[in-house]
Amino acid sequence: MARVVVDVMPKPEILDPQGQAVANALPRLGFTGISDVRQGKHFELEVDDSVDDETLAKIAIGFLSNPVIEDFVVRRLS
Amino acid sequence: MARVVVDVMPKPEILDPQGQAVANALPRLGFTGISDVRQGKHFELEVDDSVDDETLAKIAIGFLSNPVIEDFVVRRLS
Repeated sequence: MARVVVDVMPKPEILDPQGQAVANALPRLGFTGISDVRQGKHFELEVDDSVDDETLAKIAIGFLSNPVIEDFVVRRLS
Repeated sequence: MARVVVDVMPKPEILDPQGQAVANALPRLGFTGISDVRQGKHFELEVDDSVDDETLAKIAIGFLSNPVIEDFVVRRLS
């Protein structure tokens, strides 16, 4: 059994209104020095050792992200 | 300038219907060996070097997560 993390983020050229809302709110709330915020999704999967990286990439492309507007990173935790 | 990542996940005792939906769908779609999926949020912040860890924790608790039902991890990328 391994724990796998998949982080899904909007591509850099895609607007991110949720992240923008946080970035705009922070100075009004007294927090300065944060110049940009982007929001994405974070998945944690419990994965059998038999599942290879290619299968994980297929799952990330097909079911965890929208490859037209999002990028993803797959990371195996120890 | 530093890049800071904040991962926000539902606490272990909180049901996660989105993650559950993915976990239940994968075997039907031909992907076996994934025993659990949990879905959370992933934030990437561009942060001034003057912003300390305490401030980042305040931002994560107050604006990026709901501490009643979610845990968060703050990570500074190199």
